[in-house]
Order: sequence, then C-alpha cells, then structure tokens
Amino acid sequence: MDQEKMRELLKKYKNGEATEEDVILKLKEAPFEDLGFAKLDSHRALRQGIAEVIYGAGKTPEQILEIAKAAKAKGQETILITKMSKDAAEVLRGEVGLNLDYDELSKTGICGKMPAKNGRGKIAIVTGGTSDMPVAEEAARCAEAFGNEVDRIYDVGVAGLHRLLSNLDRIMEAKVVIAIAGMEGALASVVGGLVDVPVLAVPTSVGYGASFNGLSALLSMLNSCASGVSVVNIDNGFGAAYQASMINHIK
Amino acid sequence: MDQEKMRELLKKYKNGEATEEDVILKLKEAPFEDLGFAKLDSHRALRQGIAEVIYGAGKTPEQILEIAKAAKAKGQETILITKMSKDAAEVLRGEVGLNLDYDELSKTGICGKMPAKNGRGKIAIVTGGTSDMPVAEEAARCAEAFGNEVDRIYDVGVAGLHRLLSNLDRIMEAKVVIAIAGMEGALASVVGGLVDVPVLAVPTSVGYGASFNGLSALLSMLNSCASGVSVVNIDNGFGAAYQASMINHIK
Amino acid sequence: MDQEKMRELLKKYKNGEATEEDVILKLKEAPFEDLGFAKLDSHRALRQGIAEVIYGAGKTPEQILEIAKAAKAKGQETILITKMSKDAAEVLRGEVGLNLDYDELSKTGICGKMPAKNGRGKIAIVTGGTSDMPVAEEAARCAEAFGNEVDRIYDVGVAGLHRLLSNLDRIMEAKVVIAIAGMEGALASVVGGLVDVPVLAVPTSVGYGASFNGLSALLSMLNSCASGVSVVNIDNGFGAAYQASMINHIK
Amino acid sequence: MDQEKMRELLKKYKNGEATEEDVILKLKEAPFEDLGFAKLDSHRALRQGIAEVIYGAGKTPEQILEIAKAAKAKGQETILITKMSKDAAEVLRGEVGLNLDYDELSKTGICGKMPAKNGRGKIAIVTGGTSDMPVAEEAARCAEAFGNEVDRIYDVGVAGLHRLLSNLDRIMEAKVVIAIAGMEGALASVVGGLVDVPVLAVPTSVGYGASFNGLSALLSMLNSCASGVSVVNIDNGFGAAYQASMINHIK
Amino acid sequence: MDQEKMRELLKKYKNGEATEEDVILKLKEAPFEDLGFAKLDSHRALRQGIAEVIYGAGKTPEQILEIAKAAKAKGQETILITKMSKDAAEVLRGEVGLNLDYDELSKTGICGKMPAKNGRGKIAIVTGGTSDMPVAEEAARCAEAFGNEVDRIYDVGVAGLHRLLSNLDRIMEAKVVIAIAGMEGALASVVGGLVDVPVLAVPTSVGYGASFNGLSALLSMLNSCASGVSVVNIDNGFGAAYQASMINHIK
Amino acid sequence: MDQEKMRELLKKYKNGEATEEDVILKLKEAPFEDLGFAKLDSHRALRQGIAEVIYGAGKTPEQILEIAKAAKAKGQETILITKMSKDAAEVLRGEVGLNLDYDELSKTGICGKMPAKNGRGKIAIVTGGTSDMPVAEEAARCAEAFGNEVDRIYDVGVAGLHRLLSNLDRIMEAKVVIAIAGMEGALASVVGGLVDVPVLAVPTSVGYGASFNGLSALLSMLNSCASGVSVVNIDNGFGAAYQASMINHIK
Amino acid sequence: MDQEKMRELLKKYKNGEATEEDVILKLKEAPFEDLGFAKLDSHRALRQGIAEVIYGAGKTPEQILEIAKAAKAKGQETILITKMSKDAAEVLRGEVGLNLDYDELSKTGICGKMPAKNGRGKIAIVTGGTSDMPVAEEAARCAEAFGNEVDRIYDVGVAGLHRLLSNLDRIMEAKVVIAIAGMEGALASVVGGLVDVPVLAVPTSVGYGASFNGLSALLSMLNSCASGVSVVNIDNGFGAAYQASMINHIK
Amino acid sequence: MDQEKMRELLKKYKNGEATEEDVILKLKEAPFEDLGFAKLDSHRALRQGIAEVIYGAGKTPEQILEIAKAAKAKGQETILITKMSKDAAEVLRGEVGLNLDYDELSKTGICGKMPAKNGRGKIAIVTGGTSDMPVAEEAARCAEAFGNEVDRIYDVGVAGLHRLLSNLDRIMEAKVVIAIAGMEGALASVVGGLVDVPVLAVPTSVGYGASFNGLSALLSMLNSCASGVSVVNIDNGFGAAYQASMINHIK
Repeated sequence: MDQEKMRELLKKYKNGEATEEDVILKLKEAPFEDLGFAKLDSHRALRQGIAEVIYGAGKTPEQILEIAKAAKAKGQETILITKMSKDAAEVLRGEVGLNLDYDELSKTGICGKMPAKNGRGKIAIVTGGTSDMPVAEEAARCAEAFGNEVDRIYDVGVAGLHRLLSNLDRIMEAKVVIAIAGMEGALASVVGGLVDVPVLAVPTSVGYGASFNGLSALLSMLNSCASGVSVVNIDNGFGAAYQASMINHIK
Repeated sequence: MDQEKMRELLKKYKNGEATEEDVILKLKEAPFEDLGFAKLDSHRALRQGIAEVIYGAGKTPEQILEIAKAAKAKGQETILITKMSKDAAEVLRGEVGLNLDYDELSKTGICGKMPAKNGRGKIAIVTGGTSDMPVAEEAARCAEAFGNEVDRIYDVGVAGLHRLLSNLDRIMEAKVVIAIAGMEGALASVVGGLVDVPVLAVPTSVGYGASFNGLSALLSMLNSCASGVSVVNIDNGFGAAYQASMINHIK
Repeated sequence: MDQEKMRELLKKYKNGEATEEDVILKLKEAPFEDLGFAKLDSHRALRQGIAEVIYGAGKTPEQILEIAKAAKAKGQETILITKMSKDAAEVLRGEVGLNLDYDELSKTGICGKMPAKNGRGKIAIVTGGTSDMPVAEEAARCAEAFGNEVDRIYDVGVAGLHRLLSNLDRIMEAKVVIAIAGMEGALASVVGGLVDVPVLAVPTSVGYGASFNGLSALLSMLNSCASGVSVVNIDNGFGAAYQASMINHIK
Repeated sequence: MDQEKMRELLKKYKNGEATEEDVILKLKEAPFEDLGFAKLDSHRALRQGIAEVIYGAGKTPEQILEIAKAAKAKGQETILITKMSKDAAEVLRGEVGLNLDYDELSKTGICGKMPAKNGRGKIAIVTGGTSDMPVAEEAARCAEAFGNEVDRIYDVGVAGLHRLLSNLDRIMEAKVVIAIAGMEGALASVVGGLVDVPVLAVPTSVGYGASFNGLSALLSMLNSCASGVSVVNIDNGFGAAYQASMINHIK
Repeated sequence: MDQEKMRELLKKYKNGEATEEDVILKLKEAPFEDLGFAKLDSHRALRQGIAEVIYGAGKTPEQILEIAKAAKAKGQETILITKMSKDAAEVLRGEVGLNLDYDELSKTGICGKMPAKNGRGKIAIVTGGTSDMPVAEEAARCAEAFGNEVDRIYDVGVAGLHRLLSNLDRIMEAKVVIAIAGMEGALASVVGGLVDVPVLAVPTSVGYGASFNGLSALLSMLNSCASGVSVVNIDNGFGAAYQASMINHIK
Repeated sequence: MDQEKMRELLKKYKNGEATEEDVILKLKEAPFEDLGFAKLDSHRALRQGIAEVIYGAGKTPEQILEIAKAAKAKGQETILITKMSKDAAEVLRGEVGLNLDYDELSKTGICGKMPAKNGRGKIAIVTGGTSDMPVAEEAARCAEAFGNEVDRIYDVGVAGLHRLLSNLDRIMEAKVVIAIAGMEGALASVVGGLVDVPVLAVPTSVGYGASFNGLSALLSMLNSCASGVSVVNIDNGFGAAYQASMINHIK
Repeated sequence: MDQEKMRELLKKYKNGEATEEDVILKLKEAPFEDLGFAKLDSHRALRQGIAEVIYGAGKTPEQILEIAKAAKAKGQETILITKMSKDAAEVLRGEVGLNLDYDELSKTGICGKMPAKNGRGKIAIVTGGTSDMPVAEEAARCAEAFGNEVDRIYDVGVAGLHRLLSNLDRIMEAKVVIAIAGMEGALASVVGGLVDVPVLAVPTSVGYGASFNGLSALLSMLNSCASGVSVVNIDNGFGAAYQASMINHIK
Repeated sequence: MDQEKMRELLKKYKNGEATEEDVILKLKEAPFEDLGFAKLDSHRALRQGIAEVIYGAGKTPEQILEIAKAAKAKGQETILITKMSKDAAEVLRGEVGLNLDYDELSKTGICGKMPAKNGRGKIAIVTGGTSDMPVAEEAARCAEAFGNEVDRIYDVGVAGLHRLLSNLDRIMEAKVVIAIAGMEGALASVVGGLVDVPVLAVPTSVGYGASFNGLSALLSMLNSCASGVSVVNIDNGFGAAYQASMINHIK
C-alpha cells in the first residue's frame, strides 16, 4: 500500500472507521511495500514505460509464456526475455498477441513495441572478436529494450589496434562504453585509456586453456590500469546493459 | 600537434614553405598526439580545472614532491595524491606553497584548493563496517577532489539491516552509490536491490580465513543478483570514485 | 553384540560354558558394535522410528530396490532415498508395497508413511530464487521425512528485500532456518542478521561465470558477517536438513 | 520506537496532538527499529543477561575501553572482547571496575561476572592437536561467556584414534560438539560419524604447504561424509561458539 | 647395445676391424641404451615375468590389439590394459589366443595367465565408500597382475568408524595399504594412524560441490597428520598399485 | 591507404584538386592503415607469400569457405585453417579449386601449395607422449605452412629418458625447439637443459585428476629451472609454431 | 591395558575378585588401548629401539625440553626433534645429559645415540638444487634417526641432466629414493623413469612467481608420467623419511 | 672429457697403454660430459666469451664471492650475478679485481668487462609502468651482459596508448621485444599486435587486490590474442633476457 493509502487509513482511524489495531496490523503485515520509501521491486524503474525483464534460464517455456502474458495483461508495453531457449521462443511465437522478436545468437526475446530512445546519448558496444558477439548482442538488445540508442563496434580487438583506432570517433561519441572481450581482456584497458566516459567491462568465456572460462579476462579487467573501468560478471551482457542504461538515463 | 597546427603545416606546404617530406615526417613522428582524435592523457578530463592525480605507491617522497611542484607550476589548482605514505606527507608539508591536506587513514593527500562541487548530485559512499573506512575515505576524498558532494554512510552492513534501512532516504537521494564491503560483500546486492541508481561495488580485503584477502567479497559482488551493480578491484576506492565522478558529471 | 550379550558371555565364561579364549576372541573380533559405547551406525538415530536414508547416486535402480525392500522387511516405517533418478523411481514404483512418493524436482523418494512431526518447532527453508528450488525441496522433503514441520519461503532473495522482510514473521517463528542461495549467497547474512535462531546456509551451484559452480556463494556464506550462521557443502540440501532436524529434536 | 510508543503517537494523532505528517514522518524515519518485528541488534539475544560482544580487531585500546565502559554503564553484566591485543588488555586492566579477565592464548577478554550456565547441557570442544588451542580457547571462553558449560577435549586427532575413542563418553554426553582441526581436518568427519548431536566444524590455519592456510581443512569439513556436520570460517572459534550456544539454549 | 657388444666393438677396433670413427659414432648414436647403466624402459621390471602395461586411454581398439599381440608374440605371459573401453574389450575378445579377462567397472583388461603371487605379503585395499570401487578395482586388478595377493576391504569410511575398526586385523596384516577415498579423504589419515606399514593414499573424484572433483580429498591426504602416508594422483588406482607392488616385492 | 597514396593526396591538395578538409578528414578516418608505420594486420607478415590464417573455431563451414575463397581470389597462395571441424572440411573439399589438405587429428586444413622451406634451419617438435600428437601436429602443420622444415620427434617423454637422449642429435640440430607435454610437463625443462636454442613450451590438457586440464603442465613449464624456455597457452600448437617461425626466419 | 591384564581381570572375575560390572566398565573406559589390536601410538614402531619424534613447531623450548627429558627418563635411546628453533636448541644444550646434536639448516635436533643402520639397504636423497637442502637435510637426518643409511645426492636438477646421470649408479643402488625439488619439480619424473625402486617425491616451496609456494612442484609430482612415484606435502622432509624408513625396514 | 680425449684414450687402448676395462670404466663414469653430444652445462653457451651467471638468491655473500673469484680465475671475462643483495655487493666490492658494477634497483651485479654487442640487432624492453622497472632493469642488464644492444622504452602502458604509439618506430626496429607489465598485462597483446618480431612477455607482481601477485598479468599474457607472444615466469627478467639473447644471436 502506498503513502496515499496509508494516509487514508490514518484518516479512517481518526474518524473511527478503523481501529488502532487495524493500523498496527497493517504496519506489521506489510511495512515495506506500503510505505513508499523503498523501491517496490528491483526492476520497477524499467517496468514503468520501458521493459519488464524475464530471466529465462531455468524456466519452462510455459512459465515464461505465463509471465509474459501476465505482464502484457497489466499493460507492460515492452517485455524482455534473456537466456531464452529456442523452444521457449517457439512457444511464445504461438501467442500472436505477444509479437515476439527472438534473436537466437543472443538468446534474447522482445515482446511488444520497442521504447523510445530517450537516453542522454548513445551506448557504444565494443568487442574484441566475433566470438564475443552472443554476449554483445545480449547487451545491445537489452540496452535497446531499455530505451537506448546503441552503436555496435565489433571485432576491434587489441591485436589489430588499427581497427580499434579507426573507430575511435564513434566510440568517443558515446555516453557510456560497454567493452566486451574474452581471452586476455585487454580491450577494456585500451578503451578505458582512450575515452572520457564510463567503461563497463564484460569478460567473456571465449578462449581455451588458461583462459579458464573467462577468469583470465575477468582478472585483467579488474586490474585495468586505466581509470574509469568497472566490471560485471563473465558473459553478463544484460548486467552491463542495465547499468549502462541507468547511466545514460541519469537525471 | 593539434589540428590547428596540422592545418598550418598544410598551408605552409601549399605555399611552398614546407616540403611534402616535412608533412609525411611530421605525420609519422607523432600521429597520435597531433591529430586530436585521441585523448592526450587518460587523466586529461580531471586535470582540466579539477585535479591532477599522482599514484603515490612506489614513488619516493622526493619524486612525489617534484611531480606535485611541476603540476602546480603549470597552473593545476588541485593535486590529488593516493597511496601516500606518512613520510611523503612530511616532505610535502615542508613545501608550504603546496598547502597539503593529508589524511593518514586513507593515505590520501590533497594540495591546493578543492574544486567546486559541480556534479549532477551527490555520491553516497556506503560501507559494511568500520574496518572498511580506509578504502571508503580514499573513495570519499578522491570524489571530493574530483568536484563531487559526498555523503558518507558508514557501518551499515547487512548483519544489522535496520541500520542500512534507516539510512535509505540518504542513499536513495544520491546519483551514484559506492558500496564498500569486505567479508561476504553482501552489501552491494542489498543496496543494489534497494536503489534505482548505478552502484559501484568495492570489495575490501577486510576479513580473515576464507575471505582470502577480498576474493570472497569480490566474487559476491560480481555475482550480485541485483541489477545495476558493477565492480572494481579489491580495495580500489580511487577507481570507484573516478568512475562515480564520471557518471555524476555526465552531460 | 550388545551389552546384554556381553554380560551373557561373561556369565557363561564364569559358569565354564565359555573359555577365556572365547571372551578375548569375541572382544577382538567385534569390539565396536558389541560394546554399545559407540553409535552402531551413523544413521541409527534416524532409523529408529524416523527414516532410513539411502543415498541414490551411483547405485543402480535394482540396488536401491533391494536396500529399500530389506529396510522395509526389518520394520523400517519410513525410507528416504536422495539423489534418486527417474529410472530408479520407475523400478521402485513397480514394488507396490513400498508405496513410493517420488519428487522429480528434488530427486527424492520417500517410501512408507511419514513420521509424526515431533520436533520442538518448525524449520523455515528460505531461498534466494526459484532456481534454488531443487536443493530447497531436497532439504524440505528430507526434513519432513525426519519428523519436522517445514515452512517453505521461496524466492525472497536480497535483491528484492521487501519480499524477504514481509515474510519475516514466518522466518522468526522457526526453531532453525535453512538459507539456500546461489550467485552471491548474500541471503544467509541478511537472514542471519535478522533472526535469533541457528541459520544453516546452503550454497547452490545456481549462477554462471564467476559463480564458479557455487564457490562464490560458498565463500560468501563462510564469511558471513552475521553471527549464528554455519555452512554445508554446495547443493547439500540433505545435509542441512539432517543437522536442522538434530537441532529441532534436541532434548 | 516500540509498539507502545507507536500506539501513543496514534492516540496523540487521534486527539489532534499530532498531525498526519508527524505519523508519516515517524514511520519513514525509523520503520524498522520502531515496529518491533525485527531484531533490534544482531547480538540482542546475547546481550540481555548474557554478554555484549566487542570485536577487538582493528579497534584501538582506547576505543575498546570506551565501548566497554559504555556497555557497563548501561548495565551490561558480562562483556566479551574477541581478537583483543595484549596492549588493549593493559589499558582495560587500568580500569579496575571492568574487572578484566584476559587470556593471551585466545586473545579474549571478559569483563564483569560470568553468566549462569543455563544451557540445555554441555558443549564439547574437541581439537585435533595442541596447535589448535588458540582457536579452541576462543570458542571455549566465548561459549562460557554466553552461559554454557564447556568440556574441553584437546589433542585427540585422528592419527591417534585411541585418544579420541577413549574420550567418547565425554563427547557423546554433549548437546553440541565443536570440532576444531587444521591440516586435513578429518576430525570433523570422524566425530560426526560417532555422535548423535550437531557437530560444528572449525577449520584452523594450522599446517603448512598444501594446507594453504586452512583451505585443506575447510574443504575436508565441507565434504564430510558424516551427516550432521556444518562448518564456519577458518579459525572462527567465536562463530562456532555463538551458534553452539544458540543450539544449546534452544527453547 | 649392451656392454658385451661394446667390448666386442672395442676388440674389433683394436684388431683393425673397426675404425676409431666407428667407435665414436656408435657412442654418439646410442650411448644410453648401450652402456647398461640406465633402465632401458620404465616398465622393464614389470615386463620381465610379470606384466606388460598398456595405457588404453586415447588408443583405438585396433592399436591396443596390435600392441597386445606384439607383446604376446615376444613371449609376454601377462598383459595388463588400463582405462580400456568396452569397445576395445570387444575387439580383443575376438582374438581368442589373448584370452582376455575384462572388468567393466575398473576398465581393466588382463590377457594371458596371472603371475604367481610372489610378494612379501598382502596388499590391503581399503575404500571409504562403494562409489570408490572403480578406482579400487583398478588398483586391485593391477596389483594382482603385478604378482601380489590383494585383500579388498571396501566401504569402511570414517563416518561409520566401527566398520573400519572391525576390519583392523585384516588391514594390519598387510605389507602395504592402499587407502582410497573421495569427498573429505579422511580415511587415509585414520588408517595411517592405525597401521605400521606404508599407506598409499588415492584421492577419488567421488563427491560434488566443494569436493572440486577430488581436490578436497587430495589436499586432505597431502596434509595427513598421520606419518607414513604418501599420495598419488586423483583416481590413479594403477599408480598406487604399481608402487605398492614395488614395496611388496622389495628385496 | 599507403604512403604513396598519401603523397598523391598531398599533391592533389597542392594542385587544388583536394581541399584542406579532404586531407584532415582522410587522416582522421584512417590514420593507422594509411601511414604505413604500423603493421596493417597482425598476420601481414605471414600473408605475404606464406599463409593466410583462418581461425576456424566458432565459424560456420560456410563462413570459412567464404573467407578462404576471398583469400584465394586476392592471390593468396597458401591458406591455413586451424581448429577446423570435419564438417567444414567436407564443405571446403567441395570447392575443388581450393585444393584442401585436411588433417583430422590436428584439425588443420591447408589450401593451395605449400610455401618454400626458407627458414634459417629446422624446427624440432618434441612431445612427451602420443596423446600430445593433436597439438603437435597442429604445430607441425602450421610451421610448415609458414615455410619451415619440421622435424617431428614424438613420444620421448622424460619417464623413458633414453628415448629422448637417443634423439638428442636431431633435437640439437634445430634452430628452435617446440616442446609439447601434458601431465607434469617436465619435458620442457629437460630439453631446455640439453639444447642451446630457444625452447617454446606448449602445455597440453592431456592428463586427468590433478593435471587440472593442463594447469599442472603450464605451471611446470613457467617454473622451468632451465634457461631459454618460454611458454604459450595450453594446447596452443599454432601459437608456438607462429613464434618459432618468426625466430627461424629472423633476419 | 594389554591382553595379559585383560586375562588377569577375567580370571579375577571368574574367581569372584572382580564383578561383572568391573569388567564391563573397564571395557567401556578404555577399549582401545587395552585390547592390543590397535597401535598404541602412531609412532610406536619407531619409538621401540629407534627414535621418539617431537614436532617442535608451536612448542616452547621449555615444553620441548620437558618432553625430551621424559622420553629419556623412560629409556628412549634416540630422540628426534623436527622444526626446532635455535632458541630451543640453546635450551636443550643446557641439559648436558641429552647430548643434543642440532642442525640449524634443517632445524632438526637429535638427542642420545643414533640407532644402528638396520634397514634393507640405503635411502638415496636426491635434490634439484642447493636451495632444496633444508628439506633434504630434514629428510636425511630423520632417516638416519630411524636407523637408515642415507646417500645424499644434491644439486642434480634436470636442467643439467649430466649431473643427474653421472650419479645414476648411486641412485640405482638405493632401496628407496626421496626426490626433492621446487620450481617445476621435474626431478621426480626423471628419477622415477630411471630407477626400479619406490620414489617418494617432496615438492619444496623453493621458487617464486608462478611456483606459488610449491604448488607448481606439487602438481608436477602428482602428475608424474613415471610409474612408482608418490608424493608427500610441500617441504615435508620428515614425512618422506618416515615412509622411506618403513619401506626400507619392511619385513 | 671431450671427444679429443676420447680419441686419445682409444688410441692408447689400441697401443696397449690402456686396457679395455679403462675404456669401459671411463664410459660408465662420465658418459655425458665426455662425449660432447650434450651441452656440458646449461650456461655453457653464455660462458664462452659472454658471461657466467650466478643466481644470487639463497647464497651467502661469501659463497657468491668464492664462485665469482673462481670464474675469474679460470678466465671468465664477464660474470653476471642476479638477485644479488646489497650486502653481497658490499662484500664483492671489497675484492677490487672483480671490478663489480652493482645496480640496486634490479639487484644485478656485473663483474669484469662487458662483452661486445654482437647480436643480430637490438632487443627492445618495453614496460607498462615505472613500477615494472626492477624487472625491466634485470632484463636489460642481463641482456647487455649476454652481448646485446638494448633499447629501454619504459612507462608506455596501454592506458596512455599515445605514449606507446609514439615509440613504435623504436619498438619495430628491434629483433626481439621483451614486454613487461603487471596489473592486467595488456601491454604484451598490444605490442604483439603491432610488431612483426617475437615478443617475450614478462608478467610482474606489480599491482594489488585481484592482481594476485602477478597471476592476472600472467593469465592475460598466456591468453594473448596476438600471435607471436610467449611468456616466462612472473618477475623473471633474467629468463626473458636469456631467451631474447638466444634469438638475437641465432645463426
């Protein structure tokens, strides 16, 4: 119950329509969602006008369908599903009203219409190699579903520095950069040293041997000698997009 | 050489005052700093009107003094020194003109006058315990030296949740939150779940046994189930402040 | 042989019906099970009136069937099978007298009738997310098979703190809490800081990337800044239920 | 503010002595400590009649003295200080009224009188070797300060099994067992297999080489093949004592 | 070429039948196998009268068949094949003369007749649980193929200490003990503390979660507080049998 | 654009055929590839007359075919494809003009004619066991595709030292040695101690248990007590061949 | 109480001099030390006629002195003290009767006369470098104190293979070899491939960087491709000597 | 004994001045150093005309002095001492004839005259930061002592890419590059992508937190996405210099 309802209850109590016990009970039962001082739900900001997020991993196609339909029913205009299997996509496609746009590479599905691109500027998504694309596309599509313009700058790893440098203008125009790389993860440091905006680094599990499934890239990025770089979990394109969108929408 | 100088050279070349070889040579010698498309120095943004940063670790007091004096000489109004030993502070205090303000807990020194607090809002710095204060103060003082208003909310770890919750209003007012914790590092997730702004998590090496010098907190923070959390290196208060300031000054 | 049999043997020896050698030999052969000072079997307490436990992993359906039938034959009223495959369940269902109740999610089977709920109070089982449910249900069903009332409070992870807090009364009513979470494992610390009863933490292998198959949650829980938290192996719902039942049945 | 004060405020509001805004403000300011549904402080249970706990590490002797005097001033009868340096002990000894009992081996100090031993039974503390004694004594003295009878059974490691077995009666009489061992940590499994009560295992950093500062013992204990064993952090004698006391005082 | 041949060559050189160059060349070409001071082949000892060992992993059934036939052709009476797939066994069974005895559990095949049991005494093979049997049987069958009498004492893990202790006489009669356990690996320490003979410990990858595929057991065994314990690689039943056989056949 | 084109542009600018803006724009757009001071592409050296390298992992057969055809079209005489699946080989075989030579063991394909063996001498490739052959053949075939003579000396691991030593002459004749081994990786140290030329060590993931997928061999090789040994990633036969070829072609 | 005493008690019981309760009580009190089927003390074998072992680490000089004097008092002829500090040596030297022989390098002290060298043959102790000598001398002196002839073959690491090979005759003459090496630990594999006797490998913490305090050598030795190698803890010279002595004294 | 002496012995044998036994004995005693097919000493190549290397760590000043004097006595013109303490330098300075040149930063000492710079070209030594200088100077001085011209290009880390790029001509002129960096170690990949010569990467232990004493840089370098990069141990400047010199002197 929100503050308005609390005020109503207090008024009823004053008027004798509610007892002291009613007030105390209500407070004990649901102190958190009622008082409006805490975010009701960790995704509230996104849900209001932007996108409801469904984490698809570990959910059956039917569970995803049900949640998506419920979100649509309560008026949600954009619904984002991450880690969505092809099977789940098949099932949701059957529900024509959801209007699913599914991307197999990034395992993301978007239902409904895309929100307006109302951020402060662009989010540049930069990858070291083409193998980082599944993570990059997860980030890109999530960022778009959160109302951001995205500039994809892929396969500009540090082993061919000229490719990165010849895209520098595009990268420097962004408000936030998401730097995605596996193997040695050096991209984050090089980009961090070249731009003046926050760099969110995403290590990927791309590589073999001593890459230890992304550990090498993760450690590299955490130890970046460039200032202005922070890191999210290995392969967590969604997480980087979420924070990048927050930064790009800051008031 | 900047674009203006490049244009002058081209004009001289056209006029016959410079040869083709002069142009080619100049391009080969210094293509990067000359062409203006790359940031001249990774700290340029901060240095212009805000603060020059000197990383004190591994430098002798004399080296620090020399760099600080040089920065002041070229007109730098604020000079920030991190990881600065007490001995170095003694030496810099001898140079009255530098006007050193040294904080032993955070090992940070600030010379000159503090910049205006010209960010979009406040940076909240939240810690789990009092033992995290050295890292928190490094973050706080760096953020201040970068022109930010800082709200220090210390010792509100998740084991005494009421302390954190009763400070929620202050935390939610910030534009960015820096969450600093050692041991299990749960603070970042709890704060990330409560606020709608970017959370920069700093794991600290506080703890013993299976904390493995901050590894436990680091992994926790990387795996945060709350969206909107990114992570910097263990004990890296400076890094969090730097990125927080970037976000708080975003245009 | 139990103490009674030992006493009989001593009497026979005194009466000349047994030789000194008989006594010495008996002692050497089986000193442990005979003398009654040690628990005959690590599961004795449970077996007597509660449940015999069969660890199903690495056993063929036929082996499980045989052990279950033998347990029933010697009068065991409840038989609990953990890590039981669907195939094994098929085979045991064929043995009507066993009356198998199989739960696929938690891979647990229970044969016979459930014991009385004769603990001191309830065991609350709290999870961070729905993906932790297989481990949670293993814990819940084991706890029930050991004679405990269980309160399931699922999907109350710290990223949506209000969900946890609005269930606080239920959690605080329990005699023991089992806190189950993957990813950053912060749930154990938050719960440990809120309740006054023992918290048994179970890290789960839920997560990806730097969760390292549960290592992140495990370290978090071991480093809990809340007092009153202890930890069992990753995904070990059974182990937590076993110790929780011991605590709930303490005399 | 407790429920009583809340009721008073509501009455004032009804009587016109307080405005609706006053009520709303109060709720927002301190919803948690006021409403009585959450534990005010994680150590509340212990503090009431038992012991206030001061974590001495990272605090100056003067800070410890101040906290201890404040606790005494508000009527605390027993004050427990863990990880207390010899220097801090010197300072607190100067304050005669505190009546400090300091133990250098375990670095624990106890001020005031010891609480009554009002648990359900004894806590047995079992160690593998004499080198585990600092951790064991921390556990023992903490448990005593929490109102428990403690039975110390030291140096009964599994390499000399007869020493452990000849103390079995004492161990089996306890309501809870704290098993403390470094190196391979096998003690927890062996004890867990012999007794019918909860075993809290404490890995210690005793050992060298591949003990990796307690990691080997920690992993052993987490993988215990005996049921009924849970684990706390390396060298965390206090944590084991705290949970053991909770179990021993269960209602 | 052996010493005899060397002497012949020298004689020929003296007689003028060989040149100085011939001698020098021969020395350079094959100094090692010729001079008789080094073991020609690491398996020589075993091959002479006992068993030729073929490591089956990574070899095709046809390759194994070929090597086995070649060994038989040169008079080898016993041929041991480890890590042998069922498919390979099918192929070798087709070669009747090889007289293959294949054990699927341990993936070992033995061709030819078993050597005499001519060691100094018995090798006891002790396991913690039934899941350790594949490794145990590899050890047992290898030891038998090397001419040892083996006493199998399985499923006597430390969680049910009485089972281990009631088999103590058998264990103590052995000349060498191979202790095989997964999970916490405590068996090696307990056995090492009870017997007076060398204990070779084999950690197994049995377990889950924090067993980390045998790492927990491996570390436990390396840190054994019992003297007289050494360790081989995880799941390396062959290696333990090989060294145990060496010890049992020592002259 | 190369220096020649830059000079042409400058001339046009002087002649009034290009504006100052044209020159500045060109410089900003592509400063790196145009100015000839940096390597255009990390594989340039190899591509010129030697081999174009296509990393096959994570590419579809069709993508590989397309790249290979494009390379051939622009005159590339040798095309090397690493980590190439059987399926991709089928597809490329369909393109007769490519003239694919595919090796399943090493998953390498070579199209076109092999380059001349124009290095300073031979590259010796030495392996510990036959299981290291897939990595060794990758190294060997890559080295050949880069224009080197290769001497394959396989299965000369240190457990049978005489096999290594009797091949010493061949090894010592090489200009560079690639030492490939899994398990304990001792081969690199032994070879490094015997020869006077650079040794490039390649750890392989061959082994089980505590080999931890090549980590053991990797650490061994990094800690080699022999001078003159450097290391590449686990299973990275290509990388070793690439550097070995650089050394063998040094001017 | 031993079997003789048990028999006496039974006789007394038969004669009426002891009650049934007396017998039962005695059995319950001390079943293990009384029945003679278990080793009284893990060092019993050594103590009888050879050496009592005192682990000096973590004991005060006074404690060591007391234990040593007690051992001497009960007739122990040789007393071995490991990990003994110089200070402790000073104290024991003061007790003339103990006749201490202290070696600072290995931190071992031996009191009393050395036992006869009554093993089956020699124990060869082989090290990779001179920095391994502290561990090697611990092994050597312990082995001598256990009644073994020791052959010290130091500084024969694999980087200078000729040094190892020219000592091969000495190594091959031993009944057991202890191979001690840090860094890459390759010595164990090379020696294991050359000799026909059990090799006990001791990794040392010698090295830096990626040697990770002995972890690299430990993993190498566990993964030895040579058969007949087993491993003890890092720097555990005593442990290797103990098992080597057991093997050398096997009956 | 070299081949010449072998030939002499054979001649004496032919002449009757030596017996067959003499020849056989000589061969058995010292087959390796005598036959000239193996490197007599792993440092032989360097010692002949270049430098004898003494590893100073773990040696007393007196031991180092003795070895240095012996080397000088036998005609060694250059003697290189690594990991040399200041104390050792004091002692060697006392021996005027040695003519010690000691560098405290890199802990290297060089006695005698420097060899001619007779390599194929220059070795470029590139570092990420000034904190990497101790390792870089070790590499530089060792390389010089091995007869190489060295170009020091320090503090050109990837966070300020323009510094690296403006030194590209110098780097590209070298025959071998040694890339030295701590923290994220990205320098090796960036340099490897820019140059056409072998890059030897040296991770340093510079950094804190998740740099884990050089592990982060080590993994980065091993996973370099640039071809032509190989890696030596953390902080191993000597090792890189040694191999770089081998490459620079290749025939």
